[in-house]
Amino acid sequence: MSEARYYHHRSPVTLECGYVLPEVTVAYHTYGRLNADRSNVVWVMHALTANSDVADWWPHTVETGKFLDPSRYFVVCANVLGSCYGTTGPLSVNQETGEPWYGDFPDVTVRDMVECHRLLAGYLGITHIDTIIGSSLGGFQALEWLTGYPDVADKAVLIATDVECRPWEAAINESMYMAMRCDPTLGERHPDAGAQGLAAARSIALLSYRSHYAYDLTQQDVEPRADIFTRRVQSYQQYQGKKLVDRFNAYSYLTLCRSADAHDISRGRGSMADALSRIKARCLVVAISSDILFPPENHRIMADCIPQADFRVIDSEYAHDGFLIEHEKLNTLISEFQQKA
Amino acid sequence: MSEARYYHHRSPVTLECGYVLPEVTVAYHTYGRLNADRSNVVWVMHALTANSDVADWWPHTVETGKFLDPSRYFVVCANVLGSCYGTTGPLSVNQETGEPWYGDFPDVTVRDMVECHRLLAGYLGITHIDTIIGSSLGGFQALEWLTGYPDVADKAVLIATDVECRPWEAAINESMYMAMRCDPTLGERHPDAGAQGLAAARSIALLSYRSHYAYDLTQQDVEPRADIFTRRVQSYQQYQGKKLVDRFNAYSYLTLCRSADAHDISRGRGSMADALSRIKARCLVVAISSDILFPPENHRIMADCIPQADFRVIDSEYAHDGFLIEHEKLNTLISEFQQKA
Repeated sequence: MSEARYYHHRSPVTLECGYVLPEVTVAYHTYGRLNADRSNVVWVMHALTANSDVADWWPHTVETGKFLDPSRYFVVCANVLGSCYGTTGPLSVNQETGEPWYGDFPDVTVRDMVECHRLLAGYLGITHIDTIIGSSLGGFQALEWLTGYPDVADKAVLIATDVECRPWEAAINESMYMAMRCDPTLGERHPDAGAQGLAAARSIALLSYRSHYAYDLTQQDVEPRADIFTRRVQSYQQYQGKKLVDRFNAYSYLTLCRSADAHDISRGRGSMADALSRIKARCLVVAISSDILFPPENHRIMADCIPQADFRVIDSEYAHDGFLIEHEKLNTLISEFQQKA
Repeated sequence: MSEARYYHHRSPVTLECGYVLPEVTVAYHTYGRLNADRSNVVWVMHALTANSDVADWWPHTVETGKFLDPSRYFVVCANVLGSCYGTTGPLSVNQETGEPWYGDFPDVTVRDMVECHRLLAGYLGITHIDTIIGSSLGGFQALEWLTGYPDVADKAVLIATDVECRPWEAAINESMYMAMRCDPTLGERHPDAGAQGLAAARSIALLSYRSHYAYDLTQQDVEPRADIFTRRVQSYQQYQGKKLVDRFNAYSYLTLCRSADAHDISRGRGSMADALSRIKARCLVVAISSDILFPPENHRIMADCIPQADFRVIDSEYAHDGFLIEHEKLNTLISEFQQKA
């Protein structure tokens, strides 16, 4: 990951829950240059545990000829509120106590994240966005921005995402919380608190990112095994858990998952169809055929309710993780969408 | 649950792992009467956390006119080795120490479970089975019995199950173990050890028993909610976790899940096709259309490799749990299968 830049917003920010953050820092990356008429902004929203360095987590996108071509676009990505990659979150210092928030960090919503993105946009002199792109939790943010501020963008690409957090997703989150609460160090006031529970939570989350088929493709046992009870995928799950523990923290993880629990673009905006009908941007809605977390069918319904939307399904066995793995197929679809006047 | 009966096998039983249990108790239920020529036995194998009282856990099956009609069949079901409903398991007393095994209980396999079923069959004077029926882990046992002892039965019904534990299933299990290991009481020598982790594990398992669609059907939020972060499904997951804790224990749960990790009917029997080709029973293979744990496609392949097998898919939105919920559809399919000469 390359070094982020930081916007320090020195005024209070009122969260949807009513809590007032005295100030907010937003970490961000940009690629390319803002053109003279400020018409070439592509704003990327990142998923749950990612960061503002799109070029790092979304391979082969910030490249010449690709949909985040830095010679053509001014690409912006900001780390979300509540995360731990530079934007204000549980490990940031609470000005009132002089100590990090840890478990005392307030609940934030996807709307709160978008408000922080808007502060950054103002600071960067961005008054209009050409294309907003978001996958997964990034898509939640994109949908919030598009419905909350219908004039914000000309175009939007909504990938492997949803208009609300549905019961199965909230059940996955609750299972993760139940696992994390088993870790007696959760609640302690240090960055490694709840690490073992976080590893278990990551292992649980992965189950929904990759389906039966994706595991069949990549995690077959290799003989000889230590014994018949030992499976290759066991060390894989542990490895993935440890990998997240090494780069994230339990408090940010809880904060971001809880923001997903509350995700509902229709809140205060009538029915879901009413909310989606507000969107003025021309949209490309992309589902991954094997995604069990955000099934294609829900994308089709979303696309049907957005005034101008194309719906596409990427045929892939990588389930939800397809949005990261299938960058070539995405590039073809999105480039075509960008070129359509 | 009605009172089980017990068969005490007073001789050693050697497990697949090499460990020798000095003796084994098998808890079982029977319904109906064994006829004069001993030709009316229907043997039911139960799933992960169930018990030998089929009439209790499989509603509307042990009834006149249904596929477990006690006026017609002599129905037998035995609690599996490693469980906690009467058959020898981690809470049983280890004869060598005079104390319950708890975490020291040896690893058992599905084959070991079947060997205990065979001991019970011998004790009951059952030399031949008309129909073996198993769903989920019960199907694992049925498949093991049919491949290990091809002459055991005339017919078999294999529901929502598989010939081996595939990587995604083992990943679910590992996620449960990771959650359970976060509970510092796991390892203590009492029946409630690891209870909080067991609740989390149950919550994780449920995610695979019911898909997105089943949760959509049953766990939509009801307004007003306490706050936007509180979801109905959160208390549902917690309730289901607590419910299992009240009737099961962490050591048996680990033992049974680990037996699933090692499930592979081809072990020592050549290829999977070789193993399945040994089956002499006429089989009915039934998948649930929305089952994400044991997808229909794998059932089709299984049925293709069994010399005499019909393959049926029950159209249901209840995913894996459909095998319990869709008893009417199952009854129609199985009764038809039983009547075919």
